[in-house]
Amino acid sequence: MKMNKRIKINPFAYKVDPINETISNPDTHIIRKLSSMKGQYADTKSYEEMLLKEDRILYEVYEKLVPEIEGGLLQGMSIVHPGKVGREYFMTKGHFHLILDTAEFYYCIKGNGYMMMENPEGGWAAEELSPDTVLYVPGRWAHRSINIKADEDLVTIFAYPANAGHDYATIETRGFRKLVFEENGKPEIMDNPKWIE
Amino acid sequence: MKMNKRIKINPFAYKVDPINETISNPDTHIIRKLSSMKGQYADTKSYEEMLLKEDRILYEVYEKLVPEIEGGLLQGMSIVHPGKVGREYFMTKGHFHLILDTAEFYYCIKGNGYMMMENPEGGWAAEELSPDTVLYVPGRWAHRSINIKADEDLVTIFAYPANAGHDYATIETRGFRKLVFEENGKPEIMDNPKWIE
Repeated sequence: MKMNKRIKINPFAYKVDPINETISNPDTHIIRKLSSMKGQYADTKSYEEMLLKEDRILYEVYEKLVPEIEGGLLQGMSIVHPGKVGREYFMTKGHFHLILDTAEFYYCIKGNGYMMMENPEGGWAAEELSPDTVLYVPGRWAHRSINIKADEDLVTIFAYPANAGHDYATIETRGFRKLVFEENGKPEIMDNPKWIE
Repeated sequence: MKMNKRIKINPFAYKVDPINETISNPDTHIIRKLSSMKGQYADTKSYEEMLLKEDRILYEVYEKLVPEIEGGLLQGMSIVHPGKVGREYFMTKGHFHLILDTAEFYYCIKGNGYMMMENPEGGWAAEELSPDTVLYVPGRWAHRSINIKADEDLVTIFAYPANAGHDYATIETRGFRKLVFEENGKPEIMDNPKWIE
């Protein structure tokens, strides 16, 4: 994988490849494995057992880098692989933005899943993702992608304010209010038994 | 066309329909006709002759409305119809953002064309648009979509900072430095004879 790590200040274009699930000339390629999600899945026993067998790749992100200044937009592709930890679907870590009042725009190009969201005011929302769905995460809403297919990646294109930053710690500490499990072969949204107010 | 005109503050999702070229439950539907582009096309005689025959629709925009505050993202679909005024392809008005240092993200889902761009520092750029191309317009760059196909719409999905605003007046007054004409059946980028420094 060629990596420019070049921060672009002029206009640029790139191709999205839904078949090979990549973008042309990505500046970064982030790989998140099972080991990085300690404490995030409800079924700790299944998590530990899976990790002993293999540190599987749960999701990947390709980014285009632009200056992280107000008015700019960071962008890229997110790929959540299929699978479950116990009965809970593979998902991203999820995060708030450090500048809380910054939104995010998602365009789903492949697969099926949910965007799980919650805000500090106690609200939560789960929106379905399928090809040609746009999902808007307003400012203040933490967000996590969840793949509910057994055999297909969930692929989205995203864009968000370049100065937003990431707060992963809040979710790592207390989790999301709601989780998505497979129940009789179908996804069900349930309370997170470990959630800390 | 049902119009909610509702400004959304919670998360929401909608479907992009590339076949019918619309989005589900748009909040606005903007229609730009030939009469609104007076002085923008190089060939004034052809423009006046066309207008006498019919005030054709050149392009359309569907929007989703969110509060126009810093950190939010306005979004929607842009459709530029095929056609020419003289030898110059149908295009959007083009604009700077009122908050000049705000970017824009485009995802092309149908057709072929160019995004013509220029900045106050004297730079210009033209990037090709085709299905699955992402085009990034950084802050400071005016931008205009141009449809170069004879028989197909140019359809893009866009997102940009919700507080950006639009400055159409600068382009209406002096135009873009470069225009795109059909020359021997192919698009060619040429100097704008009317451009005012």
